[in-house]
Amino acid sequence: MHLSKEAFMSKLVIVGTVAFDAIETPFGKTDKILGGAATFIGLAASQFDTDGAIVSVVGGDFPQEYLDLFTSRELDISGLEVVSDGKTFFWSGRYHNDMNSRDTLVTELNVLESFQPHVPDHYRDAEVVMLGNLHPMVQMSVIDQMTEPKLIVLDTMNFWMDHTLEELKQVISKVNVITINDEEARQLSHEYSLVVAARKIMEMGPEYVVIKKGEHGALLFHEKDIFFAPALPLEEVFDPTGAGDTFAGGFSGYLAKTGDYSFENMKNAIVYGATLASFCVEKFGTERLLSLTPKEVHQRLKQFQNLTQFDIELT
Amino acid sequence: MHLSKEAFMSKLVIVGTVAFDAIETPFGKTDKILGGAATFIGLAASQFDTDGAIVSVVGGDFPQEYLDLFTSRELDISGLEVVSDGKTFFWSGRYHNDMNSRDTLVTELNVLESFQPHVPDHYRDAEVVMLGNLHPMVQMSVIDQMTEPKLIVLDTMNFWMDHTLEELKQVISKVNVITINDEEARQLSHEYSLVVAARKIMEMGPEYVVIKKGEHGALLFHEKDIFFAPALPLEEVFDPTGAGDTFAGGFSGYLAKTGDYSFENMKNAIVYGATLASFCVEKFGTERLLSLTPKEVHQRLKQFQNLTQFDIELT
Repeated sequence: MHLSKEAFMSKLVIVGTVAFDAIETPFGKTDKILGGAATFIGLAASQFDTDGAIVSVVGGDFPQEYLDLFTSRELDISGLEVVSDGKTFFWSGRYHNDMNSRDTLVTELNVLESFQPHVPDHYRDAEVVMLGNLHPMVQMSVIDQMTEPKLIVLDTMNFWMDHTLEELKQVISKVNVITINDEEARQLSHEYSLVVAARKIMEMGPEYVVIKKGEHGALLFHEKDIFFAPALPLEEVFDPTGAGDTFAGGFSGYLAKTGDYSFENMKNAIVYGATLASFCVEKFGTERLLSLTPKEVHQRLKQFQNLTQFDIELT
Repeated sequence: MHLSKEAFMSKLVIVGTVAFDAIETPFGKTDKILGGAATFIGLAASQFDTDGAIVSVVGGDFPQEYLDLFTSRELDISGLEVVSDGKTFFWSGRYHNDMNSRDTLVTELNVLESFQPHVPDHYRDAEVVMLGNLHPMVQMSVIDQMTEPKLIVLDTMNFWMDHTLEELKQVISKVNVITINDEEARQLSHEYSLVVAARKIMEMGPEYVVIKKGEHGALLFHEKDIFFAPALPLEEVFDPTGAGDTFAGGFSGYLAKTGDYSFENMKNAIVYGATLASFCVEKFGTERLLSLTPKEVHQRLKQFQNLTQFDIELT
């Protein structure tokens, strides 16, 4: 499949947090910078010139400059509510030396606490919905507002399994694709083997299960089929924040762009997701995504091919 | 590359332990069964009808039945010394529930303690040498006996880094390929990033570095190039013993069979190694390798292609 040959483009609705992040890694620390699941998803999806809309909420402290940034990337923000007397969601975390674990230092929900998502009228007929990590009831509300979704992709995390499992299971029963990490897949399925875990999760609703293993890549399961994409081996990971959301944005953005929701095309979507995520971790927050050029993406996709493709002919 | 088209076949010298293993896993335990690095390497390599020879030592307690087994697989055992008044090397271990770690319960070196390897005269001109995990001085002695090796592959482990680092470094400086696991690569290079670790290890001698990550697959490094092969996702791992050696046997056996030691062909060798290793872990010890048919290998290679190959056209 050659992306530029594709004229198709579906609308993409993205729901998730838009936030301020303050990040510490062994390489340095940041003040409050732009973050949030919907932010990374949107910036990644916008690499495909998708017709995307962000459904989220921020406070009066959210700079106009960031709103303009979304608009300049052709992301519709009419569903991005600004609560002028509220404060934007704030998260602060510190990564350990191996970058595979982190401590949350601060979580201030602020305007997120009473967030009621509102999908703009002209996006209710979108084919693709990307539910970023949020309270399951917020995710369900977005599903309920869609008139004819063809592909609903759910990202979630262990926090919701711990605290709102029944609500989460309702959402899971309504979606086509779920993306979670390996530990979460084990928690949700009570199975250690990821192959068995994915099968059990498919029985809960989704036809497709994506299990993210961080630096160890991602697996896509569908019926009896499995596809695996490694993470690109990097000299160093500077800041992992947003890598999972960037993956989800590349994945859903590619699918919205191509309008082909088959297993074969999802393989390509996984590759694009992994490729964009490999850029995300090179700098703090959204910095690397914002400087990214199509040529760089193209070069890294070639790297990805060289990394994974081989030539054994089987009859 | 289509394997059956290839008429080429180089001789393959395999040095390593031939042993009795007693294994405990969460699925059960065995009495003393056939084990050892050279055993798994030889059985894996024999899938390619290579002209392979095992250089090792056993005691008078080693059953004729096992010697016949090697011979029936076209493995030359004229370099497999039998010390009639000695006992065969014995290892016993217990795997933890996650199968990623194990405790060694017993190690009896026995005849291995004074082992002097002897490469049979008619194998000294072999093109390919597979140095299984053993004391570096034994490995060096085998290298010294070869007259015109084209590809020397070294497998080793952290034990030799801890106890005989200088001798090990001498061996490393003489080989073309080194295969070690991720933790060992970090220990040897004092680098956390595997990309940086591989570069440092290449500076120590080998043109190719293979880093094995167990269930997370294997990486092949050469100059600036990287290739990655995942482990096949399995419903369950029954017994990991010998998986690394089976990988090494598939890798070196394929290269000996094809006589093509390029990076491109090493990708295929890695895929064959990973494929054979995926069988090894399905049963205790060598059991699954011994029942393996060409048709099963072919089917699993197809699975491996489906797992990893995608179709993005880049110009």
